[in-house]
Amino acid sequence: MSEGTARASAEKALTPRAQDFSAWYNEVVLRAELADYSPVRGSMVIRPWGYAIWEHMQQALDRMFKDTGHQNAYFPLFIPMSFIEREKEHIEGFAPELAVVTHAGGKKLEEPLVVRPTSETVIYAMFARWVQSYRDLPLLINQWANVVRWELRTRLFLRTAEFLWQEGHTAHATEEEAQEETRRMLGVYRRFMEEWLAIPPLTGLKTESERFAGAVRTYACEALVQDNRALQAGTSHNLGQNFSRQFDLKFQSQEGREEYAWNTSWGVSTRLVGAMVMAHGDDAGIVVPPLLAPVQVVIVPIWRDEGQKAAVLDKTHEVARALRRKARVKVDDREHLSPGAKFYEWEAKGVPLRVEIGPKDLAKQQVVLVPRVTMGGAPRKESLKEVVAVQQIPDRLAALQRALLAAALRRREENSHRGVRDLARFHEIVDGPGGFVYTGWCGSTECELKAKEETKATIRVIPDIEFRSKDAPQACVVCGEPAATEVVWAKAY
Amino acid sequence: MSEGTARASAEKALTPRAQDFSAWYNEVVLRAELADYSPVRGSMVIRPWGYAIWEHMQQALDRMFKDTGHQNAYFPLFIPMSFIEREKEHIEGFAPELAVVTHAGGKKLEEPLVVRPTSETVIYAMFARWVQSYRDLPLLINQWANVVRWELRTRLFLRTAEFLWQEGHTAHATEEEAQEETRRMLGVYRRFMEEWLAIPPLTGLKTESERFAGAVRTYACEALVQDNRALQAGTSHNLGQNFSRQFDLKFQSQEGREEYAWNTSWGVSTRLVGAMVMAHGDDAGIVVPPLLAPVQVVIVPIWRDEGQKAAVLDKTHEVARALRRKARVKVDDREHLSPGAKFYEWEAKGVPLRVEIGPKDLAKQQVVLVPRVTMGGAPRKESLKEVVAVQQIPDRLAALQRALLAAALRRREENSHRGVRDLARFHEIVDGPGGFVYTGWCGSTECELKAKEETKATIRVIPDIEFRSKDAPQACVVCGEPAATEVVWAKAY
Repeated sequence: MSEGTARASAEKALTPRAQDFSAWYNEVVLRAELADYSPVRGSMVIRPWGYAIWEHMQQALDRMFKDTGHQNAYFPLFIPMSFIEREKEHIEGFAPELAVVTHAGGKKLEEPLVVRPTSETVIYAMFARWVQSYRDLPLLINQWANVVRWELRTRLFLRTAEFLWQEGHTAHATEEEAQEETRRMLGVYRRFMEEWLAIPPLTGLKTESERFAGAVRTYACEALVQDNRALQAGTSHNLGQNFSRQFDLKFQSQEGREEYAWNTSWGVSTRLVGAMVMAHGDDAGIVVPPLLAPVQVVIVPIWRDEGQKAAVLDKTHEVARALRRKARVKVDDREHLSPGAKFYEWEAKGVPLRVEIGPKDLAKQQVVLVPRVTMGGAPRKESLKEVVAVQQIPDRLAALQRALLAAALRRREENSHRGVRDLARFHEIVDGPGGFVYTGWCGSTECELKAKEETKATIRVIPDIEFRSKDAPQACVVCGEPAATEVVWAKAY
Repeated sequence: MSEGTARASAEKALTPRAQDFSAWYNEVVLRAELADYSPVRGSMVIRPWGYAIWEHMQQALDRMFKDTGHQNAYFPLFIPMSFIEREKEHIEGFAPELAVVTHAGGKKLEEPLVVRPTSETVIYAMFARWVQSYRDLPLLINQWANVVRWELRTRLFLRTAEFLWQEGHTAHATEEEAQEETRRMLGVYRRFMEEWLAIPPLTGLKTESERFAGAVRTYACEALVQDNRALQAGTSHNLGQNFSRQFDLKFQSQEGREEYAWNTSWGVSTRLVGAMVMAHGDDAGIVVPPLLAPVQVVIVPIWRDEGQKAAVLDKTHEVARALRRKARVKVDDREHLSPGAKFYEWEAKGVPLRVEIGPKDLAKQQVVLVPRVTMGGAPRKESLKEVVAVQQIPDRLAALQRALLAAALRRREENSHRGVRDLARFHEIVDGPGGFVYTGWCGSTECELKAKEETKATIRVIPDIEFRSKDAPQACVVCGEPAATEVVWAKAY
């Protein structure tokens, strides 16, 4: 099959985003070999390419957590049903999603065990053993783990019965410290999303009806993806003393009093891989931000006859060696695929830069550089002297990373509709282009649910101060009563 | 509490190894804060100190796996019961240990889901989708995951219902390649144990009755720990075509024939943390090999009056800054603990080197260096000029790492009993000092089980060629018939 044929037939198979974003998403995830459906309904398999991207995310986040004083630990997968039931809102929130082990070791268990949907209960039960005095606080723990929330309407990375995540859990001596921690970790997530994922999230406080089951306050990072829906990409919860009271997590204060500790929890998951796909992908496949790319530069040797092959391959490997100290490089020297088929495959997988080396390039001591996405109208293919290319590639990668963030930011701003004052306009946006809709809100759950029912949009957050509109509407978009705050609505994943 | 009192009272509480090794083990694991019992029977909590050691193990192994061409991926926690049942020996081996999810999302499941005890079945089912041609082989995958094997007689790190591990799974075009891979990964484990854990394992082939359920051949790394029992620390399995035939994992060969792939699997787990404790710990606590130590050097400032404090603390942090590029350093500047209490705590946690800095040291521009274990009769405490200490500490750490390996090797050799020719002598060793017992064996399972029943020792391995005795007994130690091979017996964890 010729380069042209391979490319044409395969491109035809990929649904364009504009035609059906949802179909496009499913197709690019499979084609990029990020993940696959598993034989177990609701579960997914994360394939090496997807897992390598997740590993880069993990490493970056783990460093940020450690730099802010946190330590990793590991807590049990199984949680006694009686633990989950202890915090009333917690069990109400999670009951419909639980997977339950009733038999083990050939016998029926006396007490059923829940496969953790989140680990607050078992972790704070352990904290209660470890904390005696104010000197043991703050206790700053993180866990990398799998969790299970039973889902049948699955979507790779976005909604699966099992997923991988990290959950931070901390205990503090004062309410103020817990609140500071809650905000600090929201900030870590925001910075991670901007610097690594190249996604600028909207941050803020969740309303009562959207907050974590058992939390006093939930903050979230909300990404706006290319179909103008919101995707909740990270949450940070101030748990107050809700769990410490149920699990007897007490400490002796500096003044000698016995007090309940103040807790926070916060998490991000493999959902971030889905966010990355939806934020940056195009009709040729996914686009991986250079900092997260398992392969940042793929080098494709090109030859027409066997006589050229050895010299081209030698040069290819020479360039790869020179680049290896500066970037994650792969030489694609497979013999049974045409260069075009290779281009097509690495584009689908989102590799940021492609280097092509053919016989003509050899003669001119040059290489051809092809970025995965075009930036600022620059020509797509560019011939560069070999030494110049090797020298400039790290800068090109950094520029690509910045360009992806800038594009995502521009898209978010273009699709943020401020000062929406009536339900008709609200409907028009939500049913039309979509995006973030900024309105006034009286603060009542009734108005929130009424708008949700009518428009399918939900309040994503009460925005953090820097996202607030200069002249926010003073009236609730639903009831017209005085607004208690500005809020941001969107249809969400 | 004075340094002396704190130390004496606490040391008293730790059972000496010679008195009760098993009690000692449980105590040091808790005192070093490696792990804790969880509210769920059979499960454990890995605390930050234990988890950080595991992270260092993971990083080293992960690098070795990637350097040998493997990629990480992630497969589902839940496996349909029908999958597990497909390979006959596999289900027979694992049936008694399975934990089963029968209800999820508020409903009874149509087919019960097994919480993975190991993932051959689901992984080879996926491989069957991904592999079409010989060009897709070898497929070299590794997974870091939690697994569950129901156990009620638990022991922290050694035997728990849930544990963390890695499982490698590969598919090859030929039997030879699969066998090479099986041996290669055994070699990786051996090298990892020697270089990082400072434990020289005995390696070899398992007998039929001890091999993995579903394997054609199982190879193992067996550590000999301080109570002279064997601890199986890593296994590598040649699975032949047992799973590929059940899961229809076929490929088109270069000659155009349809053939079943050849599989291998291999794993090590958090059990290695237990092996480390049992191999190197002493009556003061655990001893962590420098390469795995979360803190390699702890610096303890010492002052008697407030007038000295500022200068001592300044110097402490100055030395820490100078060392930070060369080692993982922690300054223990807690004010509510005496220096003695700190020494005691870091000894229990196995930190390889302690640096003490007091007012007298300041005047002489020196520090006091105290290694966690004494090597070659060198004095335990040593005063060194500050610049010399900073310069020499990396070498000291490397020397400690080597010394631990040398000591473990000496212990293994001293407790390897070769040329054992009769059951009386066999009994004498196994019931007495213990250790590895080398004998002849006719190859019959009958003799193997008879000796096991009588002595509680099992055949650990048919040793690899380099471990074989020069003049191995020519007769089976049990029946006296001609020996088919030499084998190594021991009581095991």
